[in-house]
Amino acid sequence: MSVDSGQNAQRDVSVYLDAAVNGATEIELQIAVAKLPGVELYETLLITLNGNTVVPDEIVTSSGSRIHWLHAEPGNLYVTYSASVYTAADPVQVDALDRSIYLRPSRYAEADKFFGFAAGQFDTNASQSDQLIAVTDFVRQRLSYIFGASDPIDGAVDTLLSGAGVCRDFAHLVVALLRGLGIPARLVAVYAPGLFPMDFHAVAEALIDGRWVAVDATGLAPRQSLVRIATGRDAADTAFLDNHGGDVILNSYQVSAVVEGYLPIDDPNSQVQLR
Amino acid sequence: MSVDSGQNAQRDVSVYLDAAVNGATEIELQIAVAKLPGVELYETLLITLNGNTVVPDEIVTSSGSRIHWLHAEPGNLYVTYSASVYTAADPVQVDALDRSIYLRPSRYAEADKFFGFAAGQFDTNASQSDQLIAVTDFVRQRLSYIFGASDPIDGAVDTLLSGAGVCRDFAHLVVALLRGLGIPARLVAVYAPGLFPMDFHAVAEALIDGRWVAVDATGLAPRQSLVRIATGRDAADTAFLDNHGGDVILNSYQVSAVVEGYLPIDDPNSQVQLR
Amino acid sequence: MSVDSGQNAQRDVSVYLDAAVNGATEIELQIAVAKLPGVELYETLLITLNGNTVVPDEIVTSSGSRIHWLHAEPGNLYVTYSASVYTAADPVQVDALDRSIYLRPSRYAEADKFFGFAAGQFDTNASQSDQLIAVTDFVRQRLSYIFGASDPIDGAVDTLLSGAGVCRDFAHLVVALLRGLGIPARLVAVYAPGLFPMDFHAVAEALIDGRWVAVDATGLAPRQSLVRIATGRDAADTAFLDNHGGDVILNSYQVSAVVEGYLPIDDPNSQVQLR
Amino acid sequence: MSVDSGQNAQRDVSVYLDAAVNGATEIELQIAVAKLPGVELYETLLITLNGNTVVPDEIVTSSGSRIHWLHAEPGNLYVTYSASVYTAADPVQVDALDRSIYLRPSRYAEADKFFGFAAGQFDTNASQSDQLIAVTDFVRQRLSYIFGASDPIDGAVDTLLSGAGVCRDFAHLVVALLRGLGIPARLVAVYAPGLFPMDFHAVAEALIDGRWVAVDATGLAPRQSLVRIATGRDAADTAFLDNHGGDVILNSYQVSAVVEGYLPIDDPNSQVQLR
Repeated sequence: MSVDSGQNAQRDVSVYLDAAVNGATEIELQIAVAKLPGVELYETLLITLNGNTVVPDEIVTSSGSRIHWLHAEPGNLYVTYSASVYTAADPVQVDALDRSIYLRPSRYAEADKFFGFAAGQFDTNASQSDQLIAVTDFVRQRLSYIFGASDPIDGAVDTLLSGAGVCRDFAHLVVALLRGLGIPARLVAVYAPGLFPMDFHAVAEALIDGRWVAVDATGLAPRQSLVRIATGRDAADTAFLDNHGGDVILNSYQVSAVVEGYLPIDDPNSQVQLR
Repeated sequence: MSVDSGQNAQRDVSVYLDAAVNGATEIELQIAVAKLPGVELYETLLITLNGNTVVPDEIVTSSGSRIHWLHAEPGNLYVTYSASVYTAADPVQVDALDRSIYLRPSRYAEADKFFGFAAGQFDTNASQSDQLIAVTDFVRQRLSYIFGASDPIDGAVDTLLSGAGVCRDFAHLVVALLRGLGIPARLVAVYAPGLFPMDFHAVAEALIDGRWVAVDATGLAPRQSLVRIATGRDAADTAFLDNHGGDVILNSYQVSAVVEGYLPIDDPNSQVQLR
Repeated sequence: MSVDSGQNAQRDVSVYLDAAVNGATEIELQIAVAKLPGVELYETLLITLNGNTVVPDEIVTSSGSRIHWLHAEPGNLYVTYSASVYTAADPVQVDALDRSIYLRPSRYAEADKFFGFAAGQFDTNASQSDQLIAVTDFVRQRLSYIFGASDPIDGAVDTLLSGAGVCRDFAHLVVALLRGLGIPARLVAVYAPGLFPMDFHAVAEALIDGRWVAVDATGLAPRQSLVRIATGRDAADTAFLDNHGGDVILNSYQVSAVVEGYLPIDDPNSQVQLR
Repeated sequence: MSVDSGQNAQRDVSVYLDAAVNGATEIELQIAVAKLPGVELYETLLITLNGNTVVPDEIVTSSGSRIHWLHAEPGNLYVTYSASVYTAADPVQVDALDRSIYLRPSRYAEADKFFGFAAGQFDTNASQSDQLIAVTDFVRQRLSYIFGASDPIDGAVDTLLSGAGVCRDFAHLVVALLRGLGIPARLVAVYAPGLFPMDFHAVAEALIDGRWVAVDATGLAPRQSLVRIATGRDAADTAFLDNHGGDVILNSYQVSAVVEGYLPIDDPNSQVQLR
């Protein structure tokens, strides 16, 4: 089957953030569409603090994640980002370091704790693509999607035990189990047309047969339309807002993401690459 | 089937402990056969410190566990206990508090962390005796018996993840999963004729249909011949030696446990009560 | 100084619970004043389910905690308990088992994890009463009282790290640190005249010089007026409502606790026994 | 004072590894001196499997860490690496991403769990260089260096509680506490002339006033002579051997590291950069 159906349709995404900065601080935002070969887009980013425009530093990682770093004095912070993504990204390249980095245990995907459990739960003699299906099915069947079921400091162990979580928890458990089986895996923050209720979304990516394949055990949005924001080991690398310093209260934020035309149909057992 | 075959055979058990007490301390021993209705036995307990006999206080719990408490000054501590158990204990009574206490999460059987996992792993509509079989099978299949695989501070969560442990770890995981399913469960330290290599042993007990049923997911010794020592929530209640104060080095200890005649055959899916 | 000032004033306590039982279940309540020598009281307990009176079983533990156990079919559950406590309890007796049980690590007071930290933080050569003051001061200074800062599955380790919690978290950290120093300690659920906002309260008890001394690192209510409900290793033993079976939603509950006359002044460095 | 004394002396380092490969696998080695500007060295790396030379792939990270990746069939694996480092590295550059990456919580330096504890333990109004001294002193005073005190899956939380560990544990606790205070910090695997007993060593690096400063709370070897191997978030990034596949038994390994002339004196409160 074709894995690319619908992946060239235009996607329009945006986010609006309203925060109270109660003490001088440094803030990192990861809300912009990843900088990747093949992507053509038109985007705007407007940040104001107490009515004055703030121009952040932009730092781009080797995987195309874009960090917008700003210093903020106390006051009202408004962030508006929107992008029209006209073309799909090329399938993401596999970097020489990827096999190393994404097999390592990480803060919220503690793969080194899962070796025993993964070896007992899954058929380690199956092909990696069959193991990927088995892990995805397991996580889908075992977890309930419940807002508020998890804490920001919860990792994949907590999620396995509680049997509940939100998108990042589903993705962390997928990542931890895959790494525990020797399959490199990582987290991707995305805009997700079709997601309901609309929000930032997170999926896993697994390195199978030389390709990074998207995995979404929540099944809440078709993978073909997802727009990559940040890529990393786990949510520690992909937070949409990181605050280092004074207290910051996120008053509200609204995300939108739509795809031109119909939402694609996503067969969960097919292999889809993020584009 | 009869669950009592062989349970009236005489059992002879003993332990010899050699420890260096490097600082004044209080020591608790739980090595003596539990004080229970029906048991007729002959036993000796000899404790010497630097060659002088020490007479410990004996404290008996409501479940018949016997704590021997002694004050020890620095020196060489030797403990010799032996018992010939002529008759089987009556099946242990269910106390009014048992349902309350043994559903509660405890230090090494953190049942409150297992509700989600247990509900996802097992058929919660099955009868409690079928759930007991399912839990026992799960633990037997998932865990490898490996000396040194676990730490004294490891609990059932660690064991589930690592997939390996010793008898106390098998028992803790059984206890945590059963409580997570709403079945009262506890740990019992035992002498275990037939165990190889010989050592102290630990099994779980589950409250099924009004009876405390023995569960040994290790399958290393027939349950009919086990001799109860201490009963409690988990290993925190049943340690054979607890030290409170100066440093104590356990140089060596040797356990023996034999049953008169042949070892009974133990069908793991039968319900056996400790006698 | 006298530790008894005010401890003979009459105290009036009550709780009203309103819950929706969504599936047949067994419920345990621990809301009644502990049954202890010296206490004279007048109390009423009324439980209705869908308008029909339910008479629970009462189970009394060796420490005087009273469990009211009831079977509940789906429906609306109302519980009203009130007591006028005319006289103070005798100072609670030290049971032969207390030294053993309350040195053991427990689910939410994981003392076995705290040995290293406690030995490094506190002067282990100080007297036990000075260590008690040091532990209480440490917990008071380190923790912020924040509603919602903790989870029901959080233990003392989580509390030490987060630096925030509610009364049970303060008490768990006190208990874990004391046990880590070799001082028996436990949790007591209490009615607390003067507490604001009014709620159930929890304090620690430390076994110092042969007496169980009350410790409240929150300092939110005078210890002299506290009315003991349940006593145990930690919150696993003292929950005011434990549910085993169908889903139960606690719609609301209201606690009241007043003392006749003025609230006593509580010097936090004095030793006060619960009465 | 000069922080560079002795940093231009020649250093000679080597490691010899002997492993049994029991199943086909992929192995990563991080044993070679980091590739950094300023370093002049002569090195040899020889890997044999069953007597045949194996040429690994070399992957160099952005921080100069060199991964040697090899496929190994079952057999006897011998690895010999030696390097003479003639000149010191230039002080390591601060990358634009460093502030972001090394503030993030990681697998063994769970900074997100330490915010509360760090804020309570240290003076957050002090300068970052004074906070660095305070953290280093705290870790040095609180931890005992004990072989075998820790597990490979232990993180900084476990170390804080147990009060004991080896070099990686000291470094992880330093890193976690610094990040918890808002100071970027990371782990560096090093060759350490003067270390006794000789072994691989690990230290922390803190980003203070725009420079990466070395921190060694163990105080076991002078920082001026350390030779950087791998740099990363924590030990997950710097393991000298990572195995992905069949069982590998490390039979033995020997490390050597010497500096020409006298070992430098290291004032623990001075700021030293790794060279």
